[in-house]
Amino acid sequence: MQLSRKAEYALHALMYVTSVSGHHHASISEIARNAKIPREYLAKVLKGLTNAGYLISVRGVNGGYRLAKAKEKISFLDILEATQGPFVISRCPDKNRCPDYQFWDEITKYLKKMLGDMNLGKIDYEKFARKNKK
Amino acid sequence: MQLSRKAEYALHALMYVTSVSGHHHASISEIARNAKIPREYLAKVLKGLTNAGYLISVRGVNGGYRLAKAKEKISFLDILEATQGPFVISRCPDKNRCPDYQFWDEITKYLKKMLGDMNLGKIDYEKFARKNKK
Repeated sequence: MQLSRKAEYALHALMYVTSVSGHHHASISEIARNAKIPREYLAKVLKGLTNAGYLISVRGVNGGYRLAKAKEKISFLDILEATQGPFVISRCPDKNRCPDYQFWDEITKYLKKMLGDMNLGKIDYEKFARKNKK
Repeated sequence: MQLSRKAEYALHALMYVTSVSGHHHASISEIARNAKIPREYLAKVLKGLTNAGYLISVRGVNGGYRLAKAKEKISFLDILEATQGPFVISRCPDKNRCPDYQFWDEITKYLKKMLGDMNLGKIDYEKFARKNKK
């Protein structure tokens, strides 16, 4: 039940972009360095998040990435689903086949609620900002 | 955050063995058929569960697998940890590095509690027993 590496990278990339928003657009090298994500892998993650409508790539001298919508409008559930598809815990599709269906269904509902309520606007970025370098 | 396939197979194999306990020992073919697990993969899963102390393999004409301890003593957390190692959601080891550490920590604590409280004795096997074939 671990988060996929891709999902963790997407979350950390978006949190970094959010933490510098209002200040500057985040370059890919800067995100890689500060969010500790291998640069090549990060390029794919950022492309996926751009295509999914969560990031905008701005060209030019002061270019870089910025959020495509308000930080409060991007939930953790949105981010996980953008990177790994619909959120599921168990593969069992049918309560008549799996004796543990109800248990996982309850956990899935709880997690979807928690992840849907959590968003990029609820993070305390101040604490981390001092360590970030452009 | 999906369960690994290995974890789902382990859960379903153990639930099947539990459902027939008191009646007979479950053969590998029978578990594969009833729990819908590919036979070769199942052999590895059963070996892992036997080594971890959750199953006993009984030899002979009426041989097969049985639980190594009371069904109430085998939690879902035990089973997940036996198949995939220590339970973790996020790879971030340090609250000073990841702005989302606290969120995942809270979710991890909830899940460990839920999975630790759930055990093989809490499943309603009756409903599924009529479909099972030796």
